[in-house]
Amino acid sequence: MSQRIVVIGAVALGPKAACRFKRLEPDSKVTMVDQSEFISYGGCGIPYFVSGDVNDASQLQSTSFHMVRDAEFFHSVKDIDVLINTRALSIDRNNKTVTVQNVLDRQEETLPYDQLVLGTGSRPKRLPIPGADLKGVFTVSNLNEAMAIKQGLSKGEVEKAVVIGAGAIGLEMAEAFADLWGIETTVLEVADQILPGIVSPNMAHMAQCHLEENEVTVRLSEMVQELQGTDRVKKVVTDKGTIDADMVIMAVGVSPNSDLAKAAGLEVSAQGAIVVNERMQTSDPHIFAGGDCVEIPNLLTEKPGYFPSGSLTNRQGRVIGTNLAGGNARFEGAVGTFIIKVFEISLASAGMSLKTAKSAGWDAISVFVSQFDRAHFYPEKGLMYMELIVDRKTEKVLGVQGLGSTTDAVFARVNAVAAILKYGPVTADISNLELLYAPPFSAAMDIVNALGNTAENVLKGKNKLIDVDQFAKWWQDRDGRDAVFLDCRGWGNAKSFAEKHPEDWKSIPQDELKQRMDEVPKDKPLVLICNTGVRSYEAQLNLRQEGITDTYNLQGGMATVKKWGLDI
Amino acid sequence: MSQRIVVIGAVALGPKAACRFKRLEPDSKVTMVDQSEFISYGGCGIPYFVSGDVNDASQLQSTSFHMVRDAEFFHSVKDIDVLINTRALSIDRNNKTVTVQNVLDRQEETLPYDQLVLGTGSRPKRLPIPGADLKGVFTVSNLNEAMAIKQGLSKGEVEKAVVIGAGAIGLEMAEAFADLWGIETTVLEVADQILPGIVSPNMAHMAQCHLEENEVTVRLSEMVQELQGTDRVKKVVTDKGTIDADMVIMAVGVSPNSDLAKAAGLEVSAQGAIVVNERMQTSDPHIFAGGDCVEIPNLLTEKPGYFPSGSLTNRQGRVIGTNLAGGNARFEGAVGTFIIKVFEISLASAGMSLKTAKSAGWDAISVFVSQFDRAHFYPEKGLMYMELIVDRKTEKVLGVQGLGSTTDAVFARVNAVAAILKYGPVTADISNLELLYAPPFSAAMDIVNALGNTAENVLKGKNKLIDVDQFAKWWQDRDGRDAVFLDCRGWGNAKSFAEKHPEDWKSIPQDELKQRMDEVPKDKPLVLICNTGVRSYEAQLNLRQEGITDTYNLQGGMATVKKWGLDI
Repeated sequence: MSQRIVVIGAVALGPKAACRFKRLEPDSKVTMVDQSEFISYGGCGIPYFVSGDVNDASQLQSTSFHMVRDAEFFHSVKDIDVLINTRALSIDRNNKTVTVQNVLDRQEETLPYDQLVLGTGSRPKRLPIPGADLKGVFTVSNLNEAMAIKQGLSKGEVEKAVVIGAGAIGLEMAEAFADLWGIETTVLEVADQILPGIVSPNMAHMAQCHLEENEVTVRLSEMVQELQGTDRVKKVVTDKGTIDADMVIMAVGVSPNSDLAKAAGLEVSAQGAIVVNERMQTSDPHIFAGGDCVEIPNLLTEKPGYFPSGSLTNRQGRVIGTNLAGGNARFEGAVGTFIIKVFEISLASAGMSLKTAKSAGWDAISVFVSQFDRAHFYPEKGLMYMELIVDRKTEKVLGVQGLGSTTDAVFARVNAVAAILKYGPVTADISNLELLYAPPFSAAMDIVNALGNTAENVLKGKNKLIDVDQFAKWWQDRDGRDAVFLDCRGWGNAKSFAEKHPEDWKSIPQDELKQRMDEVPKDKPLVLICNTGVRSYEAQLNLRQEGITDTYNLQGGMATVKKWGLDI
Repeated sequence: MSQRIVVIGAVALGPKAACRFKRLEPDSKVTMVDQSEFISYGGCGIPYFVSGDVNDASQLQSTSFHMVRDAEFFHSVKDIDVLINTRALSIDRNNKTVTVQNVLDRQEETLPYDQLVLGTGSRPKRLPIPGADLKGVFTVSNLNEAMAIKQGLSKGEVEKAVVIGAGAIGLEMAEAFADLWGIETTVLEVADQILPGIVSPNMAHMAQCHLEENEVTVRLSEMVQELQGTDRVKKVVTDKGTIDADMVIMAVGVSPNSDLAKAAGLEVSAQGAIVVNERMQTSDPHIFAGGDCVEIPNLLTEKPGYFPSGSLTNRQGRVIGTNLAGGNARFEGAVGTFIIKVFEISLASAGMSLKTAKSAGWDAISVFVSQFDRAHFYPEKGLMYMELIVDRKTEKVLGVQGLGSTTDAVFARVNAVAAILKYGPVTADISNLELLYAPPFSAAMDIVNALGNTAENVLKGKNKLIDVDQFAKWWQDRDGRDAVFLDCRGWGNAKSFAEKHPEDWKSIPQDELKQRMDEVPKDKPLVLICNTGVRSYEAQLNLRQEGITDTYNLQGGMATVKKWGLDI
């Protein structure tokens, strides 16, 4: 039996659902509607289009075999009709019709459906501040805006740019401006770290340090109050000062675009996301929804979560396509994953950060490890930094984060942990995670396994840690605190620090510690330091054996201190 | 209570177990025994030492902070005594003693133990053929042999080398010889593919093609019968001919070294591996064993498996160290993982190949997908090739393989699937595997997800495939078979093939297929071809709609044909 399917929104979810459905039911009729003239494009590619990595907007709209996915393509190749420049006005669920309007000629039309798909996506948040509608102020929400931004850059109109919001899109845009266009770029973030809610303060600090090395100015805990200019934006006024700007990008998050669903009486969450079941059906079984307009289960908290992501969207589109054709595909939810390239580093996470885990009610701790990404004897290698978030009581793994160079090393590790998160692993599952091993790719005891081992040692009280953030505070307050910083590395590494700070920085290599135990100050807290945290852990055990227990092992060691940008 | 622990074997398992134990019980006494003077080294690094990537053997024996892990290091830093050049002769389980003998002065000694650890590793198989003991014939079993090989190379004694066995070590050695020393290198393999039992014939063929591009000669289905030479080896005689050789590497696998365990009456499998429980205890609860001398559960077949691997060994060592100290750590088994760098490609697998799955009794099929490793619009990207092995009835995922460039792209994907294999995923779990997504790292519908989708389509009968191997046979036999090869790509791609083979190769781009349906031959089998298999799948659906069903979609498309080395 041939069906009539209407799909509202033709960027990512819609085309995927429509094409999958047509492959299963070629005789049925599918009509897609989109308010823009540009459809079926890779929105996540916008920063790379702005930077110039991607030359032409049509590349974002192309298949991998270089065909532009426009209305004509869908019509002739996919047998799918697309009404571009067409807005859906309302859904009549009783009569199963959608009223649409052409945005150019205002003509209205009523489309009957047997089943309807909502792929209405998200809407960028706009700060409700004076000047938000000045020329030169953009969100990064669609291809039209992206083209306007790039046009501005190409004309040489922009010398100074301000990006409001240090989330993923904000940072990708900042890199595009600073790196390829050489624009003086400032990122403003109201929170006290970049990528708030996504990565830990320490990972964020390391990435921020790297942004600054690449001449992006980052200003934290600063709130924008007004954008000034007569016609075009000229200044950004915050609670802490004024910054000149020829262009402003507002990248302060997105919210689900569910107006149409709400008006049609479909169930929508308090946060405005359309509620769907595992089959991606809304509260009306004839209407499916997916992508950035819906909420799905967070597989870690078992509560609804909002995960706007081009990747989840694509997979949900396929599930919808299958179910439109009478199938029973399910999308069970997500743990939440994230990766970004920032200049020469990659930074990734899966699941919860320590902060989100704590707010979700877990008695969580985090451990941090730095290690080479390959066998330490293999010539080409880089240092990686990883963090694991676990529940203290159950040892359940709640999240993982990684930072390293822009090979896929971080991607590979966080991917593997992300993949098992929904199965409820505990630390021992990370200690023994069966990763692929060969010296050009990994270490026999890979950093992921080391992360599990460290978490176990910490949970069992064997390894008493201090993180780099706290280390930095202790170091700055070293006169007041009267701690001793004990460098457990060889003299060659320790020398310059010990000589510069003879009062505070003491050198006893870990391999000499047992013989030189009498040199260890017994009455002061000891901060134990080595390159990555391995030898300082051994030193901590050596000291404990002698009854010296007021010791703190610097997680990630001097490798992390350096990456963190702390000057000692 | 202080214990006496004796550890036999001090390469990988032993040191790991000993060090972990000493961190937990610093007051106990540990003695390690090894027959060599070289201990605690990364044996997996030997090919890189031979190649010169690793300059000095001591690097393999060093910590990541450049301390050489010799007996003195273990004594002074770890408080572990090591008897080097010392062979364990026998175990007296009743009296809990080990008799050892110094291999230089033949002095014997009896070591009492409370708990004993066997890390006796594996032994390289040696072919029982004449000439196997000639000079210049090596296995790659330990650092002494590696140094002898490298010495031979450095002296310029080797112009031609033959590697017997195309397993991982054989191929790594072949690359070391050919790439860095410019030696004329031949790999001989008795099976009909390289890496038999590890990867599929198609993956193997693609890797072989790459070896040959790099001037390594590969000879398959060829059995060595004799090594000839007066003092040094000069010729390798096989069932198919004679090959000159100044050096021969026998890399024909390893077997567990369990003589000592067997003599002591411990339970040993028919294959000669020591039997241990999840705590890595042998049949004598006071004796632990791990690494290449034991068998562990294969988590896919739920039968005992033999997985010699430096990585598993390290993790087992830690489990043993914990349990020696009264802990209750468990090592549940392995799914079996593999990765190798071969010149400019990486090749990986996890779980079973199609062949091993079938021999284990599964009604298994495999699907093959080629796709870019990043967003297709991202400028820096490479093609990847992956294969998924699933059970037809239950859709259970049994194995995965990947091949691509030597970024970590293959490593990242196979790692993620490897990580979930023990949880018993089905194809839908691969379709929806939550991988990290950003255009510089992956595609919104990543190749892993595409692999799951393809498997589902094949299992549901939507996608009827032909693999590249069968394609090659059909192409060679094209006159006899009378099939039509229908190129579904644009004319630009198809032109040269259609013009060269007007009788056999027909071009109808998939996007024109509906309009040109009358040009499609209706009475012959159609082999459908595009770049990667996506458009030819669409074409197959288009044809089916018209009642044309005798069609075969070339898995992986022309990208795979090219990588496979087939000239059309």
